Amino acid sequence: MRTAGLFPMLLAVAAMSVPAAAQIKPAALAPGDIIAAAPAAAWVDIPHDDLLVMTLAPGAGGKPRRVVIQLMPAPFSRGWVGNIKALAKAHWFDGTAVVRVQDNYVTQWGDPNGEDKVKAKKLPAGLAQMTEDQYEVVADDKQLAASLGRQAVEDAADRAAAAAAPAGSEEARLRGDIYAPRVLFHAGWPLGADAKGEHAWPLHCYGAVGVGRNLSPDTGTGAELYTVIGHAPRHLDRNIAVVGRVIDGMEHLSSLPRGTGALGVYERAAERVPILSVRLASDLPAPRRPAFQYLDTAGGSFSRYAEARASRRDAFFIRPVGGADICNIPVPIRRRP
Amino acid sequence: MRTAGLFPMLLAVAAMSVPAAAQIKPAALAPGDIIAAAPAAAWVDIPHDDLLVMTLAPGAGGKPRRVVIQLMPAPFSRGWVGNIKALAKAHWFDGTAVVRVQDNYVTQWGDPNGEDKVKAKKLPAGLAQMTEDQYEVVADDKQLAASLGRQAVEDAADRAAAAAAPAGSEEARLRGDIYAPRVLFHAGWPLGADAKGEHAWPLHCYGAVGVGRNLSPDTGTGAELYTVIGHAPRHLDRNIAVVGRVIDGMEHLSSLPRGTGALGVYERAAERVPILSVRLASDLPAPRRPAFQYLDTAGGSFSRYAEARASRRDAFFIRPVGGADICNIPVPIRRRP
Repeated sequence: MRTAGLFPMLLAVAAMSVPAAAQIKPAALAPGDIIAAAPAAAWVDIPHDDLLVMTLAPGAGGKPRRVVIQLMPAPFSRGWVGNIKALAKAHWFDGTAVVRVQDNYVTQWGDPNGEDKVKAKKLPAGLAQMTEDQYEVVADDKQLAASLGRQAVEDAADRAAAAAAPAGSEEARLRGDIYAPRVLFHAGWPLGADAKGEHAWPLHCYGAVGVGRNLSPDTGTGAELYTVIGHAPRHLDRNIAVVGRVIDGMEHLSSLPRGTGALGVYERAAERVPILSVRLASDLPAPRRPAFQYLDTAGGSFSRYAEARASRRDAFFIRPVGGADICNIPVPIRRRP
Repeated sequence: MRTAGLFPMLLAVAAMSVPAAAQIKPAALAPGDIIAAAPAAAWVDIPHDDLLVMTLAPGAGGKPRRVVIQLMPAPFSRGWVGNIKALAKAHWFDGTAVVRVQDNYVTQWGDPNGEDKVKAKKLPAGLAQMTEDQYEVVADDKQLAASLGRQAVEDAADRAAAAAAPAGSEEARLRGDIYAPRVLFHAGWPLGADAKGEHAWPLHCYGAVGVGRNLSPDTGTGAELYTVIGHAPRHLDRNIAVVGRVIDGMEHLSSLPRGTGALGVYERAAERVPILSVRLASDLPAPRRPAFQYLDTAGGSFSRYAEARASRRDAFFIRPVGGADICNIPVPIRRRP
């Protein structure tokens, strides 16, 4: 691989300037077709204990607004995820609100008086206090180490070859991006990692849920959360804890009116969107418990889907790229059939 | 430069794992501070003839909704831009509507009956018919050639060095990304280009405005437009014409309710947002003519701003990245003071 050097890139670049009709098969499967054709075994149930159900006050015309968040599995962001589960169990979020919506950035929710020492809602006892080194994890978890090991990068020349490899090739799985020496999918999540695969961290893609905090060394508790509603602000990776992603009802957060205060904060209390309740799905009565699955990111259906996202050959496209930003390959999620 | 090889990347990666306090100056200027401090001469007036003013029906509580779009300057997308100006002059858009809002993708507007041969609104005579090769331009325009020339890439080894260079360095200006062998700013716009700088094309960043079309070889007229309201769908670059960007009132398009039909199409006519008028600013009476400026992308203020976006060293951040996705460096726009 080291000697393959940059030839694959030159070939890929050359291919892109060839008129489309000469190089592509018409009407290849679109990413959505590949998802629809994935067998039942390609789908993984999301544990009810990892699903957070947030009920907002009804919208226009009394329309219910329910948002479902998938919390990150081990070993990522453990302390914050534990705090959020404790806050949900204590019904702490009930009566808080969406307080900030900044266009092309984030929608944020929590205690509107959180910054006011007198009026702030008291946090339950026993929340973990996290340190900044926990924004990333050491890859000593066996499954994570296996994901990283399968994609090991031996040295800088390997990385250069990976950067140059066409999408779908073995080498391409090693490549990173501007924000991380390596990017990969593991257990249904997009991750960044260092070149040696010793540390890994979750990414701020669209819909990612992170933990609001004050200035360093504060790391936040999990009582103030936000989700990404614009272009992935990847510069936040490892600067703030990512704890999950919105998997249903995203439109109830992304289509809210933008706040007119600094950083998109709602200036008047009446603009805030009340949060009626936040519960773990496992604490809801069975009929109200949502059930979701993600497409196994280690399987063939996902590989084909990712390749199709990287090189759109369905009828609409005339120039397949041969690569994709990892945040442009959202992990498919569905309701359990 | 060719021999510098990958050392800069290794240094950059090493620096990123050093605890933050040891490497950064606290409270360096944030990107916003740099914009605020830019001298008057760093700002460039946008010609009134390049500004499209779209007035939507008032929103909740009778709130006015005005969207301002900056059309691309020469030499990009000339035929489509000319068509859009002709359509505006003919008041053709008046009475059309926002017909589609797909979360994390696009808001689209035009004739709701555009696909219906009987009911479709008649287009004015004389619109240009564009070909697919015009999604990119040949860099024979002197200013564009100068921008590209200043950032010439001699061969693959240079590109590898560029990919590895730390942000802000001379080499870093040469680097491309997954979607384009080179990316650069020119005359206030983010562009992609081929390795030799012979062809360049506009990018689908957040807020970019593109031309809806049917299947290839159709290229659209400009009568159906969309804007990006989520993560940059860069796979659309050179597959669809980009003609401009929303520079004011983006929230009136990005915060609309998402459509529930396939691809986010509004299923009921009542959901559509009526477009009252679309005019070129140059055709409006002086008091209603908006005036905007962009920060000169060839100047020092923009360089400092871009570097600060790439390596956030203001108080909130603990790990500057040393690079940024070009769509994460939005060109600063302001009202003319």
